[in-house]
Amino acid sequence: MRILILGGGFGGAYAAMALERLLGDRDDIEVALINRDNYLVFQPLLAEVVSGDVGVHDTVTPLRRLVPRTRLFVRDVTSVDLEASTVTLAPAFHPREVVLGWDRLIVALGSVPALSAQPGFAEHAMPFRTLADAVRLRNHLIRVLEQAAIEEDPSARTTLLTFVVAGGGFSGTELAAGMNDFLQEAVAAFRPALSPRNIRVVLVHNGEYVLEREVSPQLARYATRALGRTGVELALGVRADSATPESVVLADGRRIGTRTFVTTVPSAPSPVVMSLDLPSDKGRLRVGPTLQVEGRDDVWAIGDCANVPHPEPGKLCPPTAQYAIRQAALTASNVLASIDGGSQRPFTFTGLGKLGALGRRRAVAELPGGVRLSGLPAWLAWRAVYWSKLPGLDRKLKVGASWLMDLVVPTEITQLELGGSAGVGRVHLKAGDTVLRQGDLGDHLYMIISGEVEVVRETGVAEEPLAVLGPGEYFGEMALLGRGVRGTTVRCLTPTQLLTLPASDFSDLIAGIPGLRRQFEDVAALRAQRQDADRHEPFRDPS
Amino acid sequence: MRILILGGGFGGAYAAMALERLLGDRDDIEVALINRDNYLVFQPLLAEVVSGDVGVHDTVTPLRRLVPRTRLFVRDVTSVDLEASTVTLAPAFHPREVVLGWDRLIVALGSVPALSAQPGFAEHAMPFRTLADAVRLRNHLIRVLEQAAIEEDPSARTTLLTFVVAGGGFSGTELAAGMNDFLQEAVAAFRPALSPRNIRVVLVHNGEYVLEREVSPQLARYATRALGRTGVELALGVRADSATPESVVLADGRRIGTRTFVTTVPSAPSPVVMSLDLPSDKGRLRVGPTLQVEGRDDVWAIGDCANVPHPEPGKLCPPTAQYAIRQAALTASNVLASIDGGSQRPFTFTGLGKLGALGRRRAVAELPGGVRLSGLPAWLAWRAVYWSKLPGLDRKLKVGASWLMDLVVPTEITQLELGGSAGVGRVHLKAGDTVLRQGDLGDHLYMIISGEVEVVRETGVAEEPLAVLGPGEYFGEMALLGRGVRGTTVRCLTPTQLLTLPASDFSDLIAGIPGLRRQFEDVAALRAQRQDADRHEPFRDPS
Repeated sequence: MRILILGGGFGGAYAAMALERLLGDRDDIEVALINRDNYLVFQPLLAEVVSGDVGVHDTVTPLRRLVPRTRLFVRDVTSVDLEASTVTLAPAFHPREVVLGWDRLIVALGSVPALSAQPGFAEHAMPFRTLADAVRLRNHLIRVLEQAAIEEDPSARTTLLTFVVAGGGFSGTELAAGMNDFLQEAVAAFRPALSPRNIRVVLVHNGEYVLEREVSPQLARYATRALGRTGVELALGVRADSATPESVVLADGRRIGTRTFVTTVPSAPSPVVMSLDLPSDKGRLRVGPTLQVEGRDDVWAIGDCANVPHPEPGKLCPPTAQYAIRQAALTASNVLASIDGGSQRPFTFTGLGKLGALGRRRAVAELPGGVRLSGLPAWLAWRAVYWSKLPGLDRKLKVGASWLMDLVVPTEITQLELGGSAGVGRVHLKAGDTVLRQGDLGDHLYMIISGEVEVVRETGVAEEPLAVLGPGEYFGEMALLGRGVRGTTVRCLTPTQLLTLPASDFSDLIAGIPGLRRQFEDVAALRAQRQDADRHEPFRDPS
Repeated sequence: MRILILGGGFGGAYAAMALERLLGDRDDIEVALINRDNYLVFQPLLAEVVSGDVGVHDTVTPLRRLVPRTRLFVRDVTSVDLEASTVTLAPAFHPREVVLGWDRLIVALGSVPALSAQPGFAEHAMPFRTLADAVRLRNHLIRVLEQAAIEEDPSARTTLLTFVVAGGGFSGTELAAGMNDFLQEAVAAFRPALSPRNIRVVLVHNGEYVLEREVSPQLARYATRALGRTGVELALGVRADSATPESVVLADGRRIGTRTFVTTVPSAPSPVVMSLDLPSDKGRLRVGPTLQVEGRDDVWAIGDCANVPHPEPGKLCPPTAQYAIRQAALTASNVLASIDGGSQRPFTFTGLGKLGALGRRRAVAELPGGVRLSGLPAWLAWRAVYWSKLPGLDRKLKVGASWLMDLVVPTEITQLELGGSAGVGRVHLKAGDTVLRQGDLGDHLYMIISGEVEVVRETGVAEEPLAVLGPGEYFGEMALLGRGVRGTTVRCLTPTQLLTLPASDFSDLIAGIPGLRRQFEDVAALRAQRQDADRHEPFRDPS
């Protein structure tokens, strides 16, 4: 008999831990866990990976050490077949899918960043949920500092040194504070080219105070003031509306030039959960008080992907680790009760406390018994509580050592680029934005998915309009075919969606696909002809 | 006046350090350093990053902290113009190149892995020189263990659990030993699916003993025996000849199935150095005893990219850190002598000692004064010497702490995937190899650069030949257009070079480039027709 757990976050991993404990030496039941990564991420400390206060691997615990008797499948879940009671896993080295059956299923797939609602977010907003997100963000921050230090154009420099975080919940607040602390310290190594005054970190939050949905009004006001005092600029009462490669546009029309936009706001159900033909509310599976999914006696759902009724009537459990862990423990015993014929118990946990870091060794804390702390005492409580919750003694040792080391060793500024081609990319731009500039290096081919662009030639005294291109057309191939600099400037006439192909991939493809090179060259020749013919005619917008 | 240093390895970084020391408060001379990364890699400990004995960032030192008064450009060097005395740097965020002039130039660009001489090396051999190489290799090893633990096909499992390192110099020996130690320890977490007996690490070395070119015959023999006792399998007197995605072929015809092939053998001059119109031997710049490049009074070359005459007549300096560091210090004072009108001094350093780790706390050491050590004493000397050479107190603290932690904390097995599309890739295969198998998931489009493949359909009882494809033709598009599994098997008739395009990039491209989808669909329809017509005809090889 197999109990199958989908997802190795706090819900899934702690369910497996509880099952191992309850099962002891029983060998009639196999527990199997499927997770994309081979570790559990301790999210509360993820902002400390960005700031470098803890090491890259310190905030994650290998699942194999947490649940040594569980069969671990480090794969993505592709689909779930509720009729056949099977799950399909994505292939790894061999392009073959794996199919696994279950007798009891625990769904703990969490949520994913919802980046499709706002234009440009999918292309240009960095999510902040996984260890890879944190490492990528950290590398990006250092790369930005390195390039800002040698950038001579003052406006490009300002754009590089502006950092925007969206969302004033725990995650966004801690990230903005941690990023600001890190950048202020790191910039010392870039003197005299850069100074702390050049760094601008903006937190965009659609509310009056940060953390207002998380802690009491008094603490939220304190948190807002404390964050402001660390130098983080607050854009309150407004939300980020769209993004381009070099800016974030707020709902009130303000446009902030930046190369670093991290969003912690939106959250969407996992696509696999969405695809299930099970009752749900806003994509979260509807469960009863025993956490069993409505209408199924072999499926339970916990954590972010479940709509768990809070013991206090009319409320729902928040999507936090402390709830997921208690749900996991209860589900483990309820699943075994369903197998062994016992009775299932309802979920009764009502929460313990709340903690949020604010940078510069400040925090807010609401502890059990109504104790409210702020400032340094809250920060000490924050570290103490999360340290005690770190799974495994080795993690406690490592994080402890990192924190000690952080007191004596200067902020780490080594930037780790793992390289690799970017492949096909996507770009979102606003009307008036420049896609490529005459004289720039030809590094990409662009294909227009939607919108219109104008192609102009800068003659030194004026701009000579050459063409207007629309969906299905491409541009930028001339510089790639000739391997030189751009001969024209291309600018958006409307909001525009583009596909991009790196120059190296482009040259591989035209070498590899017969006829493709000729197709591109024919169009290029046609365009060159047309441009010559048009050179002295006035340009007319076709609209 | 500007002294420009190309490259931030031991040569370039230590030259900048020496110049900062010699220049003191002088502000008539600017020192500028160009390097791809913002850190100096301490290569002797790189194998310890793979084994996890030290943390990811412990073996690198931020250049900005080492040379705070030097202008640092974290960019690639694109080209050097000896006439104009300028260097062009690759673009970063903005697609514009940067041009920098020099009054004095120090070339310390090192060497690059030479992967083009052997078929399949460029596509399938992992180099081992940079921090990114080490981190990628470590992640790859853990990924392989994770997938082997759930692989049910015994031969695929054996291939996954075989690891091949080419090159029995210091780097290859230390890597094979470190990988073996790491895998043997890590595999404990994968019980019962895997056991240490399943792990096979092979070191391929074209010589009688490992380290025979580096240390005395007696120590080389000891090293060979010690390495063998740790369980590393030695393939001596033979070299690796070619590689495919799932194997390494040795010069004696033996084929070792593996998904992990790391080569430390070949080394080629940096392409920028190759492009210089300066006297060179085998791509290394010819310098006089003062390290000035022959024929130029404003250019010096040091480290791996220079052919430095050894003080002992008839010998050349080996490409090691201890020589590069001494060359750097001498060049700094010679460059200043050339500016201030002093006289330049010749290079006189003749080497201090040699150290090589062998795994399981064993090493070999030749220390000054003819002292030779092996085993644990040598290993302790190895750690002590390299620890003392780590640049900067913070690095010493961090590595020390990591070594201490390593004694109490179990081997780290968290695998950090930073994701990102792979873009266009390349595959090299031998005659008889299978490219894709009927029933597999359609995950790539393949384009044939050279060679011939046969397309067959497996009917259960036999194989039905369908077509032979050659250079300029592509295959695999049907499964991608239909988003399903492969309907045929494709196998190589000759050695074959392929370009691959991931399914996601393929679908983006056919959506983005007008006519491309139709072109592929037309060919697909034609092929389907032809296959139907051919179905009952015997297949003839066109050759």
